Amino acid sequence: MVYTPNLVSRQLFGKVVLTRNKCLKNFTIRNVNRNSIQFIVPTNRKFATSIESSSSSAEIPAKKHAPTKVVEFTADKYTYLRRNPNFKELTQDDIKFFASILPANGLIIDNEEDLIPYNVDWMKKYRGRSRLVAKPKTTHQVSQILKYCNENKLAVVPQGGNTGLVGGGVPVFDEIVLNTNNMNQIRSFDPVSGILVCDAGCILEVLDNYLAEQGYTMPLDLGAKGSCHIGGNVATNAGGLRLLRYGSLHGTVLGLEAVLPDGTILDNLSTLRKDNTGYDIKQLFIGSEGTLGVITGVSILTPPKPKAVNVAVLGVNTFQNVQNAFVMSKNKLSEILSAFEFWDSDALKLLKAHNIQGKNLPLKDNYPFYVLIEISGSNKYHDDDKLQNFLEELLTNEIVNDGVVAQDETQISALWSLREGIPEACSKTGAVYKYDISIPLSVFYQMAEDIRNRLRSAGVLGEDKPVSNVVAYGHVGDGNIHLNITAKSYDPEVTNLIEPYIYEWTEQHNGSISAEHGLGLMKANYLRYSKSSSMISIMKQIKQSIDPNGIMNPYKFLPTQ
Amino acid sequence: MVYTPNLVSRQLFGKVVLTRNKCLKNFTIRNVNRNSIQFIVPTNRKFATSIESSSSSAEIPAKKHAPTKVVEFTADKYTYLRRNPNFKELTQDDIKFFASILPANGLIIDNEEDLIPYNVDWMKKYRGRSRLVAKPKTTHQVSQILKYCNENKLAVVPQGGNTGLVGGGVPVFDEIVLNTNNMNQIRSFDPVSGILVCDAGCILEVLDNYLAEQGYTMPLDLGAKGSCHIGGNVATNAGGLRLLRYGSLHGTVLGLEAVLPDGTILDNLSTLRKDNTGYDIKQLFIGSEGTLGVITGVSILTPPKPKAVNVAVLGVNTFQNVQNAFVMSKNKLSEILSAFEFWDSDALKLLKAHNIQGKNLPLKDNYPFYVLIEISGSNKYHDDDKLQNFLEELLTNEIVNDGVVAQDETQISALWSLREGIPEACSKTGAVYKYDISIPLSVFYQMAEDIRNRLRSAGVLGEDKPVSNVVAYGHVGDGNIHLNITAKSYDPEVTNLIEPYIYEWTEQHNGSISAEHGLGLMKANYLRYSKSSSMISIMKQIKQSIDPNGIMNPYKFLPTQ
Repeated sequence: MVYTPNLVSRQLFGKVVLTRNKCLKNFTIRNVNRNSIQFIVPTNRKFATSIESSSSSAEIPAKKHAPTKVVEFTADKYTYLRRNPNFKELTQDDIKFFASILPANGLIIDNEEDLIPYNVDWMKKYRGRSRLVAKPKTTHQVSQILKYCNENKLAVVPQGGNTGLVGGGVPVFDEIVLNTNNMNQIRSFDPVSGILVCDAGCILEVLDNYLAEQGYTMPLDLGAKGSCHIGGNVATNAGGLRLLRYGSLHGTVLGLEAVLPDGTILDNLSTLRKDNTGYDIKQLFIGSEGTLGVITGVSILTPPKPKAVNVAVLGVNTFQNVQNAFVMSKNKLSEILSAFEFWDSDALKLLKAHNIQGKNLPLKDNYPFYVLIEISGSNKYHDDDKLQNFLEELLTNEIVNDGVVAQDETQISALWSLREGIPEACSKTGAVYKYDISIPLSVFYQMAEDIRNRLRSAGVLGEDKPVSNVVAYGHVGDGNIHLNITAKSYDPEVTNLIEPYIYEWTEQHNGSISAEHGLGLMKANYLRYSKSSSMISIMKQIKQSIDPNGIMNPYKFLPTQ
Repeated sequence: MVYTPNLVSRQLFGKVVLTRNKCLKNFTIRNVNRNSIQFIVPTNRKFATSIESSSSSAEIPAKKHAPTKVVEFTADKYTYLRRNPNFKELTQDDIKFFASILPANGLIIDNEEDLIPYNVDWMKKYRGRSRLVAKPKTTHQVSQILKYCNENKLAVVPQGGNTGLVGGGVPVFDEIVLNTNNMNQIRSFDPVSGILVCDAGCILEVLDNYLAEQGYTMPLDLGAKGSCHIGGNVATNAGGLRLLRYGSLHGTVLGLEAVLPDGTILDNLSTLRKDNTGYDIKQLFIGSEGTLGVITGVSILTPPKPKAVNVAVLGVNTFQNVQNAFVMSKNKLSEILSAFEFWDSDALKLLKAHNIQGKNLPLKDNYPFYVLIEISGSNKYHDDDKLQNFLEELLTNEIVNDGVVAQDETQISALWSLREGIPEACSKTGAVYKYDISIPLSVFYQMAEDIRNRLRSAGVLGEDKPVSNVVAYGHVGDGNIHLNITAKSYDPEVTNLIEPYIYEWTEQHNGSISAEHGLGLMKANYLRYSKSSSMISIMKQIKQSIDPNGIMNPYKFLPTQ
């Protein structure tokens, strides 16, 4: 990496300001030189679109589905799981039925190798034994499949891009996989209102590229954008990188088409921003993780594509100052603030150790905390002016210690790839215990420190110890921390030190044990840490009312124990 | 009104620009003189807070509850309605129970005069015969009331500020009124996250004033803000004036506390932006109009209060150009656009005729359409610059013909009061048929024209005819048109000409028969025009599952016929 060593030069708004402002004495917004792009290897934000791999996550780096024969069967690993004896096993008659209604490329049967990408999750933590993958092309076919399965008590797992992190999108036993790969048509887009209507199997990035040509963008963005399906995004209420700016899918999804377990098609594909006619049924499907039916179509409000985007990465000495910088960013950047991310020095250590972003990193010195701020607006001049004022105020108040501002799109990607490279850097160590917690900002980082202390006291954290790192990063702007605990291998002693401690800690601090990754199989039995018994009871009531045979994505989401 | 007649002066950003730009030749952004405030009498946005009058609306002008003895009983007016014989009638034992659990100021019994503000809706269209109003102070008391009512099959109408327009918040027969007036405490506010938690009975304007002191604002604003309760806002999924900017309550409400009909308290008062743990049950309550239980507490994400707000009113010759201006505003004003409202020349005629805003109006000439654009941002200089560029582009492209830009807060209020005075101006004529429709922008104004043609062809529209005006106004930015048909009196012949024609028209154009006012009693039986039978069926299933005795707000919301 080649740094321009001139600590008094600032390049903002395309012109170099050579004056050294008094308030800037401890700070340099360095010129990230155009000729030194190699300092950060861009970029692994994109998942290869050819991967066929229900749900979604902002935490997934680019990686092909590796051979998965070594993946242990979920049912063997989690011995408390019992196949529901009410479910029928697949027969030749069933196969004949599916073959009769599906297109030629819409059925995979009994070929273990071909079934692996559908039976095994992206993390290679979960593996089911499904014998049949159905890939319908139309909503009518989905309806036929579910009606048949419901009448015949065949359990079904809806699956999108298979990018989930909690085992929600793959079978546990022999459930049929209903994959939305073949449902990938854009149905309509209105350039006046910005409302997009499309099939559930459209890939997020494909939609975003399509919209970009018309001056719009998707209101959500994830690391898995190159693979995840919009239907899976909605089914898992994906959060991701733009939630701070555009809000959750509960606000931006305007309508859904979904098929109920009995085959009923709910045609609620509204293209209206306002519609107060009856219960907002679609909301139940947003985040239901395929347990109430299959989402087949999505209507979503898309915002104009920002004309000016910029990114700064800052070094900060205390988490209190990370919070201070966040409050100040809401005040000074306000309507143009589109991301406020952070990672800690343990995350940076792994980025360096595994050479994920090249050997050199944008800030020369090490800091306990790093903050990435993205601004997106309609006027570059105004936006850069706001950013400059904001950074100067941070300096004047000694809230940050160092920082860089990107000068072009490549550098923006490079800075983002630091943040987005962290999950991959963590995964290089061996095993990763991944937690996705929402907690109030006041105790946001205390969780990482408490876990570290606990593991250290137990003598399992450190060099040549079972646990090598406790890495914290995530979306400060959303109150969502990702805690990755890296270890040589999954170790029951370590697991028992972390769980249920981390869930109890979260409950005590009024947090959520799943901010954005959902419950799936992984957290179904921990739901009580975030929801009261009366809430769980009404959830079960709704599940029972809509899916009385329980065929939709069984063993997951709601507690089985 | 005193206009500065200098057609070449422009006052923007606090300085007068005396040059006449070529592209400005057909346009003047007039100086709305500080000394001529009398031209628009400010402002009737606020409802008197002393009125005790569930639900909410952006369409309500300031008006005290007038004597209501003349209001016909709903049951006498709508003869298809039959009291549900499964509901018990109130007994002395019941009254004793309520008296035993409620505070001294929490019970009104059998005093007709005292009961009127709770039995009669704000529009004086609906009148119930409730003998008892319960005004609990705590969630526990609400729980006790509902448990008792459910066990004893006493029907209940939840009521907030009683500012609804569809008869949803007042009884039809002798239902007990459960009013949230006494539940008015702010529970917590976090100035870092901007998350407010409060009782359901807090008045919207009180909350907004409280937040203003801390640099925040409520994400919704309504004409009825001085009276409406936040609980009613949530129960009716109120839209209002800030939806374009901050999105719907489905996105901004983070948590709810609600009491189910059996007295179960659902404690889902989350203060987290992200929480993917189970079905998002609170969403069912948003817009459920009191039919599933009583909302007792609300957690809501509030945005920073904009530091710079400005408003422009423009005269436009065609509705196509209103649409063009909207598309351009999304492009040029983008993140600072906070309202895009319109009204037509019939609306202006009534404003003039009834002298609602003073005799003089800001634009000298008459135009078929008027547009009000509000911008809200964090930097006045940047925002005014964007507004100027936008207005110049409108002129260059000959999209608008004339306009004014406010110079201070008083003028902002004055310009807003034009838009907000329209419902009052309509109500001065006698009877008003009010419709609140969402439709695609491409056919937005065609509805008004089609209704006019229909009424004219039938010989009922014009001077000395039963119908005097068909007035259209509303939220272009949300695709929400308010159609007010003014008449001497409610006339069955006129009603039959409008209904179900207007609902059929809406259905044919994929619209919603209730954009933001809800269904209440008025539109319950028209739900089929906006929702399919499968959607209505699942709604009924949910209602049956949560309120099996049907005690919550009966006769409304879901079709009874």
